Amino acid sequence: MTEIAAEQVFSYNRLHDFSQKVFSAMGVPEADASLAATVLVSADLRGVDSHGVARLSGYVRLWKAGRINPTPDIKVVHETPSTATVDGDSGLGLVVAPWAMQLAIKKAERSGSGWVSVRHSNHFGIAGYHAMLALAENMIGVAMTNASPLVTPVFSRERMLGTNPIAVAVPAGEEPPFVADFATTTVANGKLEILQREGKEAPLGWIQNRDGHPSTRPDELKRGGALLPLGGDRLHGGHKGYCLGALVDIFSGVFSGANFGPWAPPFVSFLPLAENPVGLGLGHFLGAMRLDGFRPLEEAKQAMDTWIRRFRSAETIPGQNRVLIPGDPERETEAIRRQQGIPVSDAVAEDLMQLGASLSLEL
Amino acid sequence: MTEIAAEQVFSYNRLHDFSQKVFSAMGVPEADASLAATVLVSADLRGVDSHGVARLSGYVRLWKAGRINPTPDIKVVHETPSTATVDGDSGLGLVVAPWAMQLAIKKAERSGSGWVSVRHSNHFGIAGYHAMLALAENMIGVAMTNASPLVTPVFSRERMLGTNPIAVAVPAGEEPPFVADFATTTVANGKLEILQREGKEAPLGWIQNRDGHPSTRPDELKRGGALLPLGGDRLHGGHKGYCLGALVDIFSGVFSGANFGPWAPPFVSFLPLAENPVGLGLGHFLGAMRLDGFRPLEEAKQAMDTWIRRFRSAETIPGQNRVLIPGDPERETEAIRRQQGIPVSDAVAEDLMQLGASLSLEL
Repeated sequence: MTEIAAEQVFSYNRLHDFSQKVFSAMGVPEADASLAATVLVSADLRGVDSHGVARLSGYVRLWKAGRINPTPDIKVVHETPSTATVDGDSGLGLVVAPWAMQLAIKKAERSGSGWVSVRHSNHFGIAGYHAMLALAENMIGVAMTNASPLVTPVFSRERMLGTNPIAVAVPAGEEPPFVADFATTTVANGKLEILQREGKEAPLGWIQNRDGHPSTRPDELKRGGALLPLGGDRLHGGHKGYCLGALVDIFSGVFSGANFGPWAPPFVSFLPLAENPVGLGLGHFLGAMRLDGFRPLEEAKQAMDTWIRRFRSAETIPGQNRVLIPGDPERETEAIRRQQGIPVSDAVAEDLMQLGASLSLEL
Repeated sequence: MTEIAAEQVFSYNRLHDFSQKVFSAMGVPEADASLAATVLVSADLRGVDSHGVARLSGYVRLWKAGRINPTPDIKVVHETPSTATVDGDSGLGLVVAPWAMQLAIKKAERSGSGWVSVRHSNHFGIAGYHAMLALAENMIGVAMTNASPLVTPVFSRERMLGTNPIAVAVPAGEEPPFVADFATTTVANGKLEILQREGKEAPLGWIQNRDGHPSTRPDELKRGGALLPLGGDRLHGGHKGYCLGALVDIFSGVFSGANFGPWAPPFVSFLPLAENPVGLGLGHFLGAMRLDGFRPLEEAKQAMDTWIRRFRSAETIPGQNRVLIPGDPERETEAIRRQQGIPVSDAVAEDLMQLGASLSLEL
């Protein structure tokens, strides 16, 4: 969004239809292809450009490398009334995760809450999409996933964790919902790429170099360096970000029987899979809790409204005119982009054109 | 622990027995007084000195101010098979939280998971104690609580959140359990107090002053300033720490019907309660999930062992000789302190002596 690079504007429908056709070309059945496109382009709508159509050709390369099964037999392999493990059969995470989230919601309807760990999956798009599926059911939604190792635990020189996002959505009454959705690192990789293009330095606390020293070079990741967990170094609370990233990895990978830690499969198809994998594919963790599992629904919604209004009206620091509620920026971006279209950088637009040409599809 | 101040060493039993006698003097029934002492002194054992006997006289002052009910009628006020809300009837959080955690465990036995929000409670000691209650049942334990407002959301000048800790305990097989237990701020207030005594400055990213500007003065909190959420400022991911603190507040306060945000009751009895409270007392949120709710138990435990061993063996950065697993430092401190006793600063020891004298109890 802060990028200066030239860009083109596409309507939501155009990006959705193109993405759906691409997934169909991979052999994904129509309903799944449509769902996968909806999940993917919801990232572009919400301003999380790194997780939207910019990744579409990456999914195709994974499919070409035989790492995505377009017609998976997704199934429950273990369960109790409020928990389950789902095997995604190497399907698109964009399809497997909503399937698992619907199971969590069904369990919550009956038991109050539902918690589903997922193995044998792939990149699932933005976590927020899946968590927000619970909102229409008056439930709290939770979504997390592990990811390719790019992050070092505190005191580690080795990349052991992914950016491992956590999303939690809480319904309100008259106010829009509270939607937290964040990587458990100080910053996402996308911000480093922007700094590289602009020739700028990164702040301390974002990255370290391959020897484990703090660095301000935004290209450090390509040189064997690593992202730091939320907080940065030990002095600034990096051990807490490490705890968070580790929990996402354990909930998603260890509980389900997926790969975890340094074994998590890479998104880019040119990197080899880890030797001696400890599980199947990538892992996710999805949850739903009935808001009225704790308190009568209207009372709970009114309390959420009170919470949101009080925080939104907090006095600001100099230079800022409002305190945001988690979910505000993405919802505002979505409202604008649904009306005015989605800006796509020239580089990504060119990538989509080439992808279309290679599959004989028109963008 | 890094403190230079003079200290005295007490055995665990001596601190436990004294604390139990103090709670008994408040009129807490014997079993509850013993439990409260166990929870309280577990903080000292684990090296979280700020949450142990250093707070004992604070609980007594709250009781004298009529804010703690020594004989509460703790009860379930709302429930589903895997969720519930408990009213603590203004009892000691040290007693109410384990009660609620046992309920979460019972629900998990039957339904796979159990999630209990708590209202009308008080400070519950260290979150880790409650989360760890699940370990003996081969369950994952979760504990969080809201707290007196000392923390500003990103862009806010007003203190809106407590240090709102999160603890998650995961059982392993042959390895000791994974136990994350951390405040959702960059640092705890206790570290600022140590810097004040040593006449040192705080790093940037820990605090801001009353006008909302970054500060390095460790006494800023006493001058109307605030702690910053994990990450610090916006550039370093402080909005993610704000999300975490907010989630703890919502899960603990909004779901249960406790006070939340700036209405959360202060621990210190000399501060007045908020006018027009939005709920009852302080709130907690406790959860338990069966490890075998996701995967056969032995398989899951072996996978946790693999996770722990791989992370523990990660290559280190210069100047460090090992990568820690969450829970390692506290477990190691506990092993030493059980054998060699618990160091208590002269100031805290003096406070305990005076407390004992005022209640005609011997330390």
